[in-house]
Amino acid sequence: MPEGTQYWCDAASTGELPLPDRGMEFGDGLFETLLCVDGKLLFPERHQVRLEQGFHQLGFNGPAPDLEALVSPATEAIAQSTAAVLRLTLTRSAGLRGYAPGDGTAHRCVLRLTPLNHDPLSEPVPLSLGVAGIRLAHQPALAGIKHLNRLEQVLAAGEREDSGFDELLMLDMQGVPIATTAANIFIREGKTLSTPELAMCGIAGTRRALILEEWADTAGFRVQSCPLSLDSIREADEVFVCNSVIGVRSVTQFLDRVLNDHSAAAAIRQCYLAAVAS
Amino acid sequence: MPEGTQYWCDAASTGELPLPDRGMEFGDGLFETLLCVDGKLLFPERHQVRLEQGFHQLGFNGPAPDLEALVSPATEAIAQSTAAVLRLTLTRSAGLRGYAPGDGTAHRCVLRLTPLNHDPLSEPVPLSLGVAGIRLAHQPALAGIKHLNRLEQVLAAGEREDSGFDELLMLDMQGVPIATTAANIFIREGKTLSTPELAMCGIAGTRRALILEEWADTAGFRVQSCPLSLDSIREADEVFVCNSVIGVRSVTQFLDRVLNDHSAAAAIRQCYLAAVAS
Repeated sequence: MPEGTQYWCDAASTGELPLPDRGMEFGDGLFETLLCVDGKLLFPERHQVRLEQGFHQLGFNGPAPDLEALVSPATEAIAQSTAAVLRLTLTRSAGLRGYAPGDGTAHRCVLRLTPLNHDPLSEPVPLSLGVAGIRLAHQPALAGIKHLNRLEQVLAAGEREDSGFDELLMLDMQGVPIATTAANIFIREGKTLSTPELAMCGIAGTRRALILEEWADTAGFRVQSCPLSLDSIREADEVFVCNSVIGVRSVTQFLDRVLNDHSAAAAIRQCYLAAVAS
Repeated sequence: MPEGTQYWCDAASTGELPLPDRGMEFGDGLFETLLCVDGKLLFPERHQVRLEQGFHQLGFNGPAPDLEALVSPATEAIAQSTAAVLRLTLTRSAGLRGYAPGDGTAHRCVLRLTPLNHDPLSEPVPLSLGVAGIRLAHQPALAGIKHLNRLEQVLAAGEREDSGFDELLMLDMQGVPIATTAANIFIREGKTLSTPELAMCGIAGTRRALILEEWADTAGFRVQSCPLSLDSIREADEVFVCNSVIGVRSVTQFLDRVLNDHSAAAAIRQCYLAAVAS
């Protein structure tokens, strides 16, 4: 862990999780990764929306979680951070032995604040993109939300380390592109941006939502979420990826093809920086 | 938790898990559920085989885990137990921020010993079986092993609580029966036992393996692992389920059909009890 990483478990500042915990036992929970810049969490309302959706989709009971209240134990530490990543993990707390989630409304919130040793708003270096061998399973009951069952991404990230590429595209079982191991993907064809539909698998990123609903329009692009093919990525005018930590990052190489036009990514990045500054 | 539950994290007797832990963050790990009777763990060699298979399938590095060594902190407590369930969880320990599993050989073992307040070798009450709405996704990279990504089973177990059935059968995305929420399933047609193939999803249970490789033959049945249909279960002469905690349990009702013949389950149960006694 980078020096200075801090943890909270519910209200307490502690680096220990009480056992049992269904997050550890079954991946029974959700998480959010928030970027913290100059003492502020970026786009908390977007993370709130996804957290709430996951909460209902996993059948958690009780009132929807309030992200602001959940992160409150870390408020002071966040205020003192110039650049950090806050991971919020919400698990279905303890439980009886076995899978049954019970009727309880109990959940447990674990916070982890990790300082970054670079400026997260500086322009990220364009990346090279390969294709992962492991594919994403179709599971509509879990698609879109950021739950804790992430072995597919872990195995793909393991492949990445040996691949010679900076990142790997993940396809679904039908060979349809969905996302990279840790980011959503967009392609540009002329003045149209497209990003994969996520009805069957994948995580609906907060920056993806902002591009779809706000930034593409501001930057003068049409935008759509639709099924993409590998060929559409191979033949795109431009490819870029996005997530909460990197913001918007251009793809400079997809497999053996070099991509030199990064104009849409640059325009979207301006919208992103403007939204952060406002 | 039932009174008397004990925990160990690596060698230490503790109810707290040090953060970060990839088991809690991504479900990045494996588990085994062992039945403990009269101071002894049942069929540890079978759990060893599956743990090793999962270890390699998830790309854990280093020498294969030795179950006996992993459970050694609990040896004394096990020796004093007349009836208990030992859950062994092996996670990929801590890690950097992000999905990448790293090249480390580090893993962490969490043990949980839960006393049972009934005799686990007494004949279990036959159960009624419904069908879960949530289906199992096809993911050959994770099929068969007992990894920590168990949201599908959690959601199915949640359905079970409201279903009016004791257990629910889970189908894959093509509608093919795979297992119940917490057990493997067998049907009998004449003198042949059949259990679903698990190449695409499902957990290959230790008792399923023992039935396939030893007990069916001893009890005088042919046995096969093959694709089953819902109709084959509806029309079977007999249906039963098995796992490490319940042993072998008859199904007395599948949806609206009553099943009165439990002869194969009784014969297999005799093999199970004989193996436990030997």
